[in-house]
Order: sequence, then C-alpha cells, then structure tokens
Amino acid sequence: MATIDLNCDLGESFGMWEMGNDAAMIDLASSVNIACGYHAGDADVMRKTVQLAKARNVRIGAHPGYRDLHGFGRRPIVGLTALEIENLIAYQIGALQAIAAMEGYKVTHVKAHGAISNVACEDDMTARAIAAGIKAVDRNLTFVVLANSKLVTAGEAAGLPLAHEVFADRAYEDNGNLVSRKKPGAVLHDPVMVADRVVKMAQTGEVISITGKVIKMKMDTVCIHGDTPGAVELGRHVRDGLKAAGIDVAPFKTAL
Amino acid sequence: MATIDLNCDLGESFGMWEMGNDAAMIDLASSVNIACGYHAGDADVMRKTVQLAKARNVRIGAHPGYRDLHGFGRRPIVGLTALEIENLIAYQIGALQAIAAMEGYKVTHVKAHGAISNVACEDDMTARAIAAGIKAVDRNLTFVVLANSKLVTAGEAAGLPLAHEVFADRAYEDNGNLVSRKKPGAVLHDPVMVADRVVKMAQTGEVISITGKVIKMKMDTVCIHGDTPGAVELGRHVRDGLKAAGIDVAPFKTAL
Amino acid sequence: MATIDLNCDLGESFGMWEMGNDAAMIDLASSVNIACGYHAGDADVMRKTVQLAKARNVRIGAHPGYRDLHGFGRRPIVGLTALEIENLIAYQIGALQAIAAMEGYKVTHVKAHGAISNVACEDDMTARAIAAGIKAVDRNLTFVVLANSKLVTAGEAAGLPLAHEVFADRAYEDNGNLVSRKKPGAVLHDPVMVADRVVKMAQTGEVISITGKVIKMKMDTVCIHGDTPGAVELGRHVRDGLKAAGIDVAPFKTAL
Amino acid sequence: MATIDLNCDLGESFGMWEMGNDAAMIDLASSVNIACGYHAGDADVMRKTVQLAKARNVRIGAHPGYRDLHGFGRRPIVGLTALEIENLIAYQIGALQAIAAMEGYKVTHVKAHGAISNVACEDDMTARAIAAGIKAVDRNLTFVVLANSKLVTAGEAAGLPLAHEVFADRAYEDNGNLVSRKKPGAVLHDPVMVADRVVKMAQTGEVISITGKVIKMKMDTVCIHGDTPGAVELGRHVRDGLKAAGIDVAPFKTAL
Repeated sequence: MATIDLNCDLGESFGMWEMGNDAAMIDLASSVNIACGYHAGDADVMRKTVQLAKARNVRIGAHPGYRDLHGFGRRPIVGLTALEIENLIAYQIGALQAIAAMEGYKVTHVKAHGAISNVACEDDMTARAIAAGIKAVDRNLTFVVLANSKLVTAGEAAGLPLAHEVFADRAYEDNGNLVSRKKPGAVLHDPVMVADRVVKMAQTGEVISITGKVIKMKMDTVCIHGDTPGAVELGRHVRDGLKAAGIDVAPFKTAL
Repeated sequence: MATIDLNCDLGESFGMWEMGNDAAMIDLASSVNIACGYHAGDADVMRKTVQLAKARNVRIGAHPGYRDLHGFGRRPIVGLTALEIENLIAYQIGALQAIAAMEGYKVTHVKAHGAISNVACEDDMTARAIAAGIKAVDRNLTFVVLANSKLVTAGEAAGLPLAHEVFADRAYEDNGNLVSRKKPGAVLHDPVMVADRVVKMAQTGEVISITGKVIKMKMDTVCIHGDTPGAVELGRHVRDGLKAAGIDVAPFKTAL
Repeated sequence: MATIDLNCDLGESFGMWEMGNDAAMIDLASSVNIACGYHAGDADVMRKTVQLAKARNVRIGAHPGYRDLHGFGRRPIVGLTALEIENLIAYQIGALQAIAAMEGYKVTHVKAHGAISNVACEDDMTARAIAAGIKAVDRNLTFVVLANSKLVTAGEAAGLPLAHEVFADRAYEDNGNLVSRKKPGAVLHDPVMVADRVVKMAQTGEVISITGKVIKMKMDTVCIHGDTPGAVELGRHVRDGLKAAGIDVAPFKTAL
Repeated sequence: MATIDLNCDLGESFGMWEMGNDAAMIDLASSVNIACGYHAGDADVMRKTVQLAKARNVRIGAHPGYRDLHGFGRRPIVGLTALEIENLIAYQIGALQAIAAMEGYKVTHVKAHGAISNVACEDDMTARAIAAGIKAVDRNLTFVVLANSKLVTAGEAAGLPLAHEVFADRAYEDNGNLVSRKKPGAVLHDPVMVADRVVKMAQTGEVISITGKVIKMKMDTVCIHGDTPGAVELGRHVRDGLKAAGIDVAPFKTAL
C-alpha cells in the first residue's frame, strides 16, 4: 500500500503567547517540526509539544530558525558566517534533543524554519552550513529538504538521510520550483482541491504545475501549514482524502 | 598521590561583548562550566569554549542559569514552577551537548549558575527541580553541588553522581556554610593565603572556618573564579601551590 | 453627574503573537495602559494601540513592567536597585511618549504592570523608585496607584498627581486590601454582579468587602481586565450598567 | 575661528558586559551618539552615559539600530517595512529622551547605527523611513547623515536639520563615497596621518581621495571610532592636532 508522510510545524507559542492549534494539528500529521526557542517556542512549549507528539506516536524533528523572536524567524539576517549558521542549527537541535530525552523520546529529523530555510533554498553556503550543523550533531538525523532546492544538493553532499518535501497548498512552476508568493495563484485555499492534489501526489509521485505540466518529483513528506486560517479544516480534508484513497499516512523512513 | 579538581566558569561572553580571560583560565582548571545562552554565552562562544577545553583535555560541564541576559543570571526570578526549572535546565544542557558533539567531545557534568544556584542552595523545590532536569536528560551526568547545601540532598535523592564543591576564595562558617558576602572577611583576596588554603584542603579534606574551627568536608572540586580582577594571578598561585605540594590537579571522577 | 474612569491594559501583543481583544476593549475603556516592550508590546504594537486610542479619544498611559518577555512581567525579579527601577520605568515611558508623538497624541499617565506593581504595593523602595522614575521624566504625569497600597504613599511623597484605582472583578478584605488570588472568592466572574458592584462604587465611593463590611475608598479609576476569558462581555456589562445608572464613563482628571 | 565637531558612539555596554572606554572617549568628543537598547546599551548604561556627557557639556544624540543584541546591530535584517523602521527609530529616540529628561538634559540629534545606517546609505526607502521616524518624534532633531549618502537626500526631503558627517579614519573614493572595508587601504590606522587629515578637512572642507583627488564636501562633524584598538590614542592625536592648528572642537549647530 502507498504511504505518505504529512508534516506540520508545531510548538510556535512563546511564554504567555499562544499560536496555532497544536492540539488539533497533531492529529492530522505523522511528523511534526518543533520550534526550538530562537524564533518561537521555549523550553516549556517544547516539552508540551514533545508530550503531545509522543502520545500519538508522531515523529518529532527540530525546526531551527534565525535568532529573531520579534520577527518570528521570517526576516533574513544577512552576514552570518557558515560557522555561525552551523552553530545556531546545532544549538537548537541539542536543546530539543534534551527536552525529548526527558520524555524518553527521540528527535528523528531537522527542517529549517522560515527565512533561514528560504535563504538556503537558493544559497549554497547557507544550505551547506545547515547540513553541516545537522551532521556534526548526529549524522543519522534526517534532513527534510524542499524538493528541487539547494537544500537537496547540500544534504546529498553531506551524506545525510533526506526526506524530500512538497507543499500541499502551494503551486509549482514547470521547473519544479514553488511559484513565488508574490504571484497570483501561488497559494491554494480550497480544501477539496488541495486534498485531491495531495492524493494524486501520493499516488503518482507527480505534481501538476501551474501551467498544467506533469512534474515527476521525489516526495517523502507533504507539508500542511498549521498557522493559517482554515489550517485544521484543510488538514482534515487532506487526511480524509488520503484515507478514502487507501493511502496510509505514516512517517517517512529514517535511518534511526 | 592526592589529586584535586579545579573548576572555573567559562564562556561568559555574548555576541560582540567579551567577558573574562578564558584563554588564561583554561590553563589553570581541570574542569570548566560553560554558560549555555540563557544568562551568558551563545552558540558561537560555546563552540569556541568547547574547542579550548578539548585542546587541553579539560572536562566540560553545562552551567545553566535563569533566562536573564540583562541580569547575567544573578537576579532571582520568583515563581518558576518545578517543571519550568527542569525544562530550562534540560534545554541548556542539550544545547551544550550538541555543540560538544560537533567537536566530538562530551559534557560530563552540570553546575547551576548564579541566582538559580544560590536559591537552590536553600530551597528544596528548586534544588530538586535542577536535579530532576539533569537526571531526565542523562542520569550519568555528574551534578556539581556546593558542599553542605540543599543541592547535596537533592542530588543524593535523585541518585545522580555528585561532585562536592568548595570555594578557594570564600570563608566558611563553623557549620560549613559559606560566610555571607555581606559580612567582612567573606571573600579572600590574598593569592598566597588562598593557595595555601587550597593545598591544605586537598591534603586533609578539611576547611578552617572563619573562627578557626576545623571542618571535615567532602570536596571533589575547588572553584576558582574567572571573572574577578586578579583571577588569573590567584588561579596561578593555587595551581603552583598544589604542584609544589605534590598534589595533582585532575578532573573529578565521573560515571562516564 | 457622577463620572468614573474605566481603565484597561492594552497593546500586549508581541511580534507575530497576538494577545487580548484590543479592538473590542478599546470601546469599553476611557483610559488605557499600553505595554512598552519590556514584558509585552513592541514599537509596532504600541503605534497601532496609540492609533486605536486616539481615534476614540481614549486617554493613554505607559504600562511599564520588568524586562521579562518570557514571563510577561509576572515574575518578580529580585535585587534591582532603586536606580535600576527608576531607569527601566523612564525608558519605557519615553518609548511610548515618542510613539505617541508620532500620532500627535500625548501620554497622560503611568500604571506599573504585573509583578513590579505587585512588589511595589508592599515594598516602599520599589514604590518610591517607580514614582521617582515617573517624576524625573515628567512631574505632570498622573501616577495610577492601587488604592490603599504603598504606591499611594510613594506617589504622595513624590508629589505626583494620583489616580486611585480599584478592581471591578476582585474582592476586598475589610482593611481595603485585595483578597489574595490564592483565597477562594478572590476573583469575581459573574458579569451582572461585577457591573452592579462597579455602579455602587461609582455612586458611593464605597466597596463592600468580602465579609460584607462597607469600606470608604478613594477611587478615580476602575480596572477592567482585558486578557481573561469573558473580558469583553464583563466589560460591556459594566459599561452598560453605568450608563443605565446615569453615570458617565470619562477619563480621570489629570494635571495635563 | 574655524570649528569642527568630533562625534563618537558611546554607551555600548550591556548589563554586565562592558564595551569601549567611554570615560576616555568622552573627553575627546564634542557630541556623542548613545546606543538605545536595541543593539547595545540599556536603561542603566544610557543614564550613566547621559551623566558623563552632561558633566562635560557634550551634546547627546540617539544612536538607534536594528533590534539585534546578539549581532550588535551590524547585520542587515531584511524585509522591515517603512512603518516598522519609523517605529523602531521613534521608540529608541523616545527612550533616550526620557533618560535624558531625568538628568535635565536634552537629546539634540539622531545618528543611525551599524547595519541600518549602512543599508540606508544606499536604500531610499530605509533612509526615508529613518528620517520620517525622527521627524515624527520631533522635527527639530538634527539628523546626522553620512556625506554623499542617501541619508542626505532623505533628510533634505524631510526638511530636517542636517549634520553632514565624515570619517576620520576612512578612505574616500573619488566620487566621495567611502572606500569599501573589503578593499585595502579602506581604514587608516596611523594616528598622526589621521590627525593631519582631520585638520586639513576642518581647514578646507575638502577630503583627499584614495587616488589623491581633492573632493569638496559638506562636513559638520567628524566621526572618531571608540570601539577599535588604539581608539583613544587616535582620538587624542586628532584633538591635539586640531588644537595646535587653532581649530576649536565644538558641537555642530542645531535648531534647538
């Protein structure tokens, strides 16, 4: 039977401020990416999120970002050296590993967050530094990489286990890149259409581009956003659609 | 041959701001406690400090504090729950473990920093929460505890390996407690006297109290401060004094 | 005609994180206290909150707290000197004054937030330092003080214009102090009862204590909380109740 | 008699961390730019720095930067809107104004710090947003602008009083722009040469470019760096050189 992983970013509250609907999203995902305190999350939120995930046997990964709580890690910070990027990635992974250890649970993967991920998708140095940081902590951690981005080549060069990621609700160009958010049609909002699209992805390993072209892509995991309005409803449609099609939602394979 | 461990707090710079003379202090210590980013230190400073320590085969420990960069972790923050304390301890240990892993090096111990340590020395809940945080991450980590404080009983109750700590430059009351810094004579400044005192501690396992009484104390490690004026000179006197007395400066025993 | 001021704490969002329902609460209050970035709020949130308030001709005040975003200013930080408290109060007031100046609006008052306010209510040094900080910035700023607390005596000693504050939804002891939140009955939840209570306060200048005793109190402003569930509903009941009783909701008098 | 202003960035310590030699630099400058807590400085450091400046009758200005303590405001943060830049500028000015008010002193100017200044020198939007933020707080504040940069045109468009700034220790291209720090010869280190250069600037209003060309430039103030090794010695040479040449070191004219 075909299987596909659904991943979601969780644990993005901070102190007294709550964000997202983690309790609902956790039931839709088979793997989650947990903020590690640099752009969102804190030790307490991380602990609760690990508990949520463990209770449902959902795989957990670190979701490291730039050190920028005020900007939620969504603003590129220019001029970090490769060494500084390696270090900030490692620091955040380690913090989550220890919190997970408290619950007898294990961090299986790493997915970069927000601006540092966007920068890395197009910048070799950043992509390689992220991969180097992960590898230096533990070479068995799976690196979740946006399909067709520089993250893929950096991850391959580092010899890390990779999970190729596609987006449930984003349109693709003919060359397999994401359509820029600045263009019309970049983000898909109709839950039925999105669910249908994900089912076809899981069945065929193909994405239909914004012009209608069929693109063959590696896809180990599908990202469903948790912080947008309607996120839970959209996620439920996807999950239900996959079930109806006989596709199992299950974590991607990892080296662990 | 008698041996004693000399420990020192390092890695207390932050971003562009430098503190202490780590390059000099590292040569005097056999174990160091590294700030983990909550009250001082950052991922880059931690990496450099681990490199310094590894190059000299000096043991490294996490030195977690309250989340208070502005106050350098020296101000009690009231009202944290036991769970919140556990979590902040674990987060900081994990961050250092990952940075250490990058260098193929290992965190062997944990010593609480500043205000959270001072509070814990007299408050059972805080002491137990620190011990619980350490244990939940890794029960083989040695807990460095101020001799005669609540940290000892909390560490024993948790079943953690303990390293009892005394201060080279602090006077003791007859009951084995530190003389409060508010009292005259609480801090010793004469390097010759301090060195002499440490040699006698290492030879006899005894401390002479401020009134002249002999106190038998467990002592696995002697703290030499790194952030006071004259710290390097004082540390050199201690180190030289121990050498002259035929006492080896070597890391405390750990479970690892 | 009798008038009373209703005050509410606003602008407690931070970066991407939202808190409270400012758009609804602003319609219920005649003066608002705006977080200034140390425990909540940021320059952007402050600007929007000033705009909201100006559009409704609602008076604005600074709501300074401890420097503790993670703890939302609700945890006492021990050991600040009087000078440090003065400075943190002044810094936050100034930041809001400049943001207000951008909108051609004016800060008229200052009310301390959370833990620093709670500490000051019982600690002379803290209360006097807050008053000194306000006075040093501008002696015409009204100091909003919890009735019967050390804030009152500190404000009087400083010669600042004062606005005595009572809480709509908190029970009082016979001596005029707030019933501790740890005791049953400390917080009132029934909007009808709370509204009725505020109307009587405004009509008589009296509060009925938890044992039924009548307490005469100075009261220039009534605090309605904005960050609790049901806050908007409770506030509406209070506002409607006052209107029905012919009591005008209007800002307290100030020196400006 | 010819006069020239020497300006220096001060107050860049933070909490327990010290930076620069403010006590020495203050004697060399006639105006200082004070960090306002976003990239360096805090309320306590600001207070002390204002006291230092007032005691010597040295003019004070706000030195606002990006919100980035870890990076000391030296890393561009991409994607801030014009509104966000206006707000962060205003917030920081206001904070300093209130601290200055505590000492009965007055903020007379604003000079942007580090990365936000560098970005603004080449980016119209950023330059205009900085000018707008200053103007919205107080249109009489002098805007210190790097000669020949976009800051000049933005300041002129806003109608703010301007002080054109040149650097004592930086080489200039033939077109009046600074030689990039990446090129050899960009920074001048010889105190005698630098002093000689500043004297000629003050006497002629001209700078000799790196190729030897004479460039006529507006120059109201000369920046002497305080955070580089040898800064104090270099500053003393400049100050002494000006004195020997009969040029008075005095604050630039302002509208206040």
